[in-house]
Amino acid sequence: MSTMRAVQVVGYHQNLQMDQVPVPEPTGPWDVVVKIGGAGVCRTDLHILEGQWAEKSQVQLPYTIGHENAGWVSAVGSAVTNVQEGDTVILHPLITCGLCRACRSGDDVHCEANAFPGIDTNGGYAEYLKTSARSVVKIDSSLHPADVAALADAGLTAYHAAAKAARRLTPRDKVVVIGAGGLGHIGIQVLKALSPAEIIVVDRNADAVKLALSIGADHGVVAEGTQVEQVLDLTGGNGAEVVVDFVGENGATAEGTAMLRQAGDYHVVGYGENIDVPTIDIISTEINYIGNLVGSYNDLCDLMELARRGAVTLHTQKYALDDFQTAIDDLDNGRVRGRAILVP
Amino acid sequence: MSTMRAVQVVGYHQNLQMDQVPVPEPTGPWDVVVKIGGAGVCRTDLHILEGQWAEKSQVQLPYTIGHENAGWVSAVGSAVTNVQEGDTVILHPLITCGLCRACRSGDDVHCEANAFPGIDTNGGYAEYLKTSARSVVKIDSSLHPADVAALADAGLTAYHAAAKAARRLTPRDKVVVIGAGGLGHIGIQVLKALSPAEIIVVDRNADAVKLALSIGADHGVVAEGTQVEQVLDLTGGNGAEVVVDFVGENGATAEGTAMLRQAGDYHVVGYGENIDVPTIDIISTEINYIGNLVGSYNDLCDLMELARRGAVTLHTQKYALDDFQTAIDDLDNGRVRGRAILVP
Amino acid sequence: MSTMRAVQVVGYHQNLQMDQVPVPEPTGPWDVVVKIGGAGVCRTDLHILEGQWAEKSQVQLPYTIGHENAGWVSAVGSAVTNVQEGDTVILHPLITCGLCRACRSGDDVHCEANAFPGIDTNGGYAEYLKTSARSVVKIDSSLHPADVAALADAGLTAYHAAAKAARRLTPRDKVVVIGAGGLGHIGIQVLKALSPAEIIVVDRNADAVKLALSIGADHGVVAEGTQVEQVLDLTGGNGAEVVVDFVGENGATAEGTAMLRQAGDYHVVGYGENIDVPTIDIISTEINYIGNLVGSYNDLCDLMELARRGAVTLHTQKYALDDFQTAIDDLDNGRVRGRAILVP
Amino acid sequence: MSTMRAVQVVGYHQNLQMDQVPVPEPTGPWDVVVKIGGAGVCRTDLHILEGQWAEKSQVQLPYTIGHENAGWVSAVGSAVTNVQEGDTVILHPLITCGLCRACRSGDDVHCEANAFPGIDTNGGYAEYLKTSARSVVKIDSSLHPADVAALADAGLTAYHAAAKAARRLTPRDKVVVIGAGGLGHIGIQVLKALSPAEIIVVDRNADAVKLALSIGADHGVVAEGTQVEQVLDLTGGNGAEVVVDFVGENGATAEGTAMLRQAGDYHVVGYGENIDVPTIDIISTEINYIGNLVGSYNDLCDLMELARRGAVTLHTQKYALDDFQTAIDDLDNGRVRGRAILVP
Repeated sequence: MSTMRAVQVVGYHQNLQMDQVPVPEPTGPWDVVVKIGGAGVCRTDLHILEGQWAEKSQVQLPYTIGHENAGWVSAVGSAVTNVQEGDTVILHPLITCGLCRACRSGDDVHCEANAFPGIDTNGGYAEYLKTSARSVVKIDSSLHPADVAALADAGLTAYHAAAKAARRLTPRDKVVVIGAGGLGHIGIQVLKALSPAEIIVVDRNADAVKLALSIGADHGVVAEGTQVEQVLDLTGGNGAEVVVDFVGENGATAEGTAMLRQAGDYHVVGYGENIDVPTIDIISTEINYIGNLVGSYNDLCDLMELARRGAVTLHTQKYALDDFQTAIDDLDNGRVRGRAILVP
Repeated sequence: MSTMRAVQVVGYHQNLQMDQVPVPEPTGPWDVVVKIGGAGVCRTDLHILEGQWAEKSQVQLPYTIGHENAGWVSAVGSAVTNVQEGDTVILHPLITCGLCRACRSGDDVHCEANAFPGIDTNGGYAEYLKTSARSVVKIDSSLHPADVAALADAGLTAYHAAAKAARRLTPRDKVVVIGAGGLGHIGIQVLKALSPAEIIVVDRNADAVKLALSIGADHGVVAEGTQVEQVLDLTGGNGAEVVVDFVGENGATAEGTAMLRQAGDYHVVGYGENIDVPTIDIISTEINYIGNLVGSYNDLCDLMELARRGAVTLHTQKYALDDFQTAIDDLDNGRVRGRAILVP
Repeated sequence: MSTMRAVQVVGYHQNLQMDQVPVPEPTGPWDVVVKIGGAGVCRTDLHILEGQWAEKSQVQLPYTIGHENAGWVSAVGSAVTNVQEGDTVILHPLITCGLCRACRSGDDVHCEANAFPGIDTNGGYAEYLKTSARSVVKIDSSLHPADVAALADAGLTAYHAAAKAARRLTPRDKVVVIGAGGLGHIGIQVLKALSPAEIIVVDRNADAVKLALSIGADHGVVAEGTQVEQVLDLTGGNGAEVVVDFVGENGATAEGTAMLRQAGDYHVVGYGENIDVPTIDIISTEINYIGNLVGSYNDLCDLMELARRGAVTLHTQKYALDDFQTAIDDLDNGRVRGRAILVP
Repeated sequence: MSTMRAVQVVGYHQNLQMDQVPVPEPTGPWDVVVKIGGAGVCRTDLHILEGQWAEKSQVQLPYTIGHENAGWVSAVGSAVTNVQEGDTVILHPLITCGLCRACRSGDDVHCEANAFPGIDTNGGYAEYLKTSARSVVKIDSSLHPADVAALADAGLTAYHAAAKAARRLTPRDKVVVIGAGGLGHIGIQVLKALSPAEIIVVDRNADAVKLALSIGADHGVVAEGTQVEQVLDLTGGNGAEVVVDFVGENGATAEGTAMLRQAGDYHVVGYGENIDVPTIDIISTEINYIGNLVGSYNDLCDLMELARRGAVTLHTQKYALDDFQTAIDDLDNGRVRGRAILVP
């Protein structure tokens, strides 16, 4: 049995560790083994090491971390027809059953029997990863997996929220994006591609606001204390029809709610604090709080089409797989611009 | 100038007072004066007397209270074509402009220049009330205004929420109705008429649950401590696709959220406490909190069609206009079964 | 290898023939073999024998006919988890791939790689049939397959059209159902369950109209020449918001269009003649012609839930499998009331 | 009483005639009199002179023609609050009642009691025109009415169809636009602004195709006989998810249907020939034919927002009002590039 390098969680509140483990092989009919070309390093990985997901995921240690992956198909199970060896693919983060009501409705993210490589089974900080035919999206062979891997989870979450938000937006509407960081700057590009609404971006970081304006935002607001007033000014005093909140902490939700117009939609994407709002305010303004999880397989296909034509781009900072600890440390210390990617 | 009896707010934390005031006349081209046939007595009227609405409405005292009205047209402005003297009508609670974006979109409840008789201008505890051509819905002359007046506001709010909730419901879905009182028992009838979902009703009052079952609920749960578990049992352990909460206080929102399935909709109708929920729970389950105000003019027309064919009925307890204080006291002391109606 | 009885197409313009053929076995991981409990006899089967489908289906003769099936699971492939031996099931008419965009969107009827047992591969006029895990809907064991088999195709088509039509219907709307025969009488029951609109049924057969009224139609019109005028009278001279046409021949589409209101939807379900209408009429009235194929897997699950609670029932006339020729002849000669079902 | 110049229809199959007529004045409370700044000359005007609309409109001769108008408010009725003298406005082509169900639903184009200046009452080939407060959209004073007048009807129709079509379009979808002339080239710009789909334009005129590519189309096809094959090639052999047909004659509808994918939407905008298609083709492919009339008041507001920011532009060729006959002749003889506009 051949072996490979894999970066594993060996204990909580401990560093990750490079190990030699067996190369995965297709055992079920729909299995697909992917040679990893790029694996995104995500803040959730830090939270995993802190043990925040231990109880929720029930994962057995040691296991291989990494949930944002792209690469090339290296082996397929007996029933796989949609990809073949050598295809360039990006991986939907979930392995889904295809048979439950959610899967049968195109809403596979709510699959009743899913697995989540990198969270509750072996992930992509490794040379190979095993997933399912239902989770691989074939992409143009001109794209390098390391350049797009970050779209598999961070990008997909931003796409999902932005696409849901865009459905109601018309040329006269305004949409506020709170947070122009990793997810937010993809969300802005998606809103630009999918909706004719005016985009107002709010971020504490002036550079992030500048970047936002360069990729399609119509107005930028640096959050230095008067951000609610500035948004109200930009919306005729009424607030925006839609707010997409990629922050969800440090007071963002109360401020964001104050930026929302009557009958508006508040999209919750970032998390941390509580939504805490009187029911009388919800009913007298008739606003909605809309939850957003990662996108579906269809969302990922749509996002990759935007990426193919250059409508969505992202900054990446690449590290050799062996330098995983540097990547982790850089992320933890705010030294990553865009998204950190491990390249085996 | 002729005069009429009208029950007025003359001061907060004071009793209402019967006065003689001028009969209103059409002064603008779209004005419609209605001879009141029935005016609903609502818990909001008690709140007005407590001063809870004083700042919000900015109403000048004294003024005539009563925001749930039906009657017969007695005079119309020069441009009115949709009703004529003698027509039996129910009144949409708002007077709306017809020109703002909300009005032009059928969403007149969010009219930017509305008036609200009984709240911020003279209402219907009187012999006559002035409203607008845009606010009158002609109903069958066989219906008596006193029998349907309560549909004008309480019923309309319940209709609006239930109709919005029904849009996503299929035969395999479950909907939980929290609260089978005044609004809830209308909401149940509307859900029954508009959706094929299974209806589960939760109420603290065993009699209210019994009534709910007799008017279309499929399952009744008396809330005595195990209501969350009982609802989970009735929904295969997963929770319901939709919760419509007509209570909104005393812990209802936390319990209701626990009854909700992944990707479910929580309709906020009743109010009192805060929605207070971690953003991580909203995104990991991808649930939505949907605000609900009173219904639109179109909603009222639809509801009156259901009433016409007997698909929605309600209990009323009638009082002569002169007995307004008895009605108020009965409501305040829980002695009203169904809805109290003043009949001039 | 064990054998079984199967009724086969051995040539066009020839009678069907009973043969002994091998019992199918699971060969692929998602295969499911079903012991047939009931197989519907459909007008399409007559068309197949006339050769109308030969070119379209490219099926190799001989093969087993029968596309409307229910029964009990007798064997499953290695990867099947959603059913097990002995389960009572109804069969979605298509075998779908689960991987194409349509399948991933819940719209599996437009699967790019589907098979259609009874049309282009072996069907259900037999003791056993091989289908896929993706095509079996588990039903309550108290239901007998022969009683529900006709819901698998005829019922599913009616459900799909009625459910699509119902989405826009409100209490003030009218819906015209043209044709209260096999599909139509199921469509009426579905409309009754899913929508609050008033249902007007038009049929040439007075008995069919009578049946329609007994299962939920609000108005019945016997088509004897004045049907358009009668429908206009029943709709205030304006026509109905929606027409669902289960006939599609002998002038039905022109008459049906004349019954349609401005901005109305015309659902095409039955077929035979052409839609032939000036584009100026389509744009000046802004009407829509909506195509309807058989329903999705989700539609079938929803329909079976309505059947379980008795909201949709159908008449069947049962024949032993060996009496297949009698069933065919009865259907061809108008001697079947409801749906003919073969029982092995 | 002051008089003004007005170009009138004095008889069918006769030339238009310049007359002196009274300047209109506000007589009803919602009347608005507009000083015309630009009036579009439309092919429908030619059809009116040929008598094609005589029976349909029942208009009394003589009357002033011209249904595509913009200008400045010169006088208002007693109840008008949304505009005042001097405001620059574009006119929705219909005068609507504001009280019928269609108007109350935002669908004012289907108003049950509308008037249509230029078609059934006096229009805009004149110095002044009387319309309603419900029909005027205030635009930025920097815009000249003559530059935008053509958006009032031609542009509005294109916007309405393109916006309806855009609702279902995702990044992976293709949309075919048939006809890149007056309406089509606006439709292309609207699709570009509102949808992420790939746009394929088909036109017989190579210059029109070139223009289309310059304003946002992704692919251009000159219709010289192989246009269906070319579109199928551009759509992977499957056809496009949506076709928007601005031609509707000379075989466009049959060709366009052949370019449509399963479950696709065919938007009928242009007119002339019949849609003539077997019902079996409609149901087996499950396609829809969607009618499109002119847009609503809200559509016009949205379109003017796109125009304000330069996302929709159009070519105009201006004529003095006195040169109306030259404009008519130029249009009739194909000498107008873009839209002919009369400027009083």
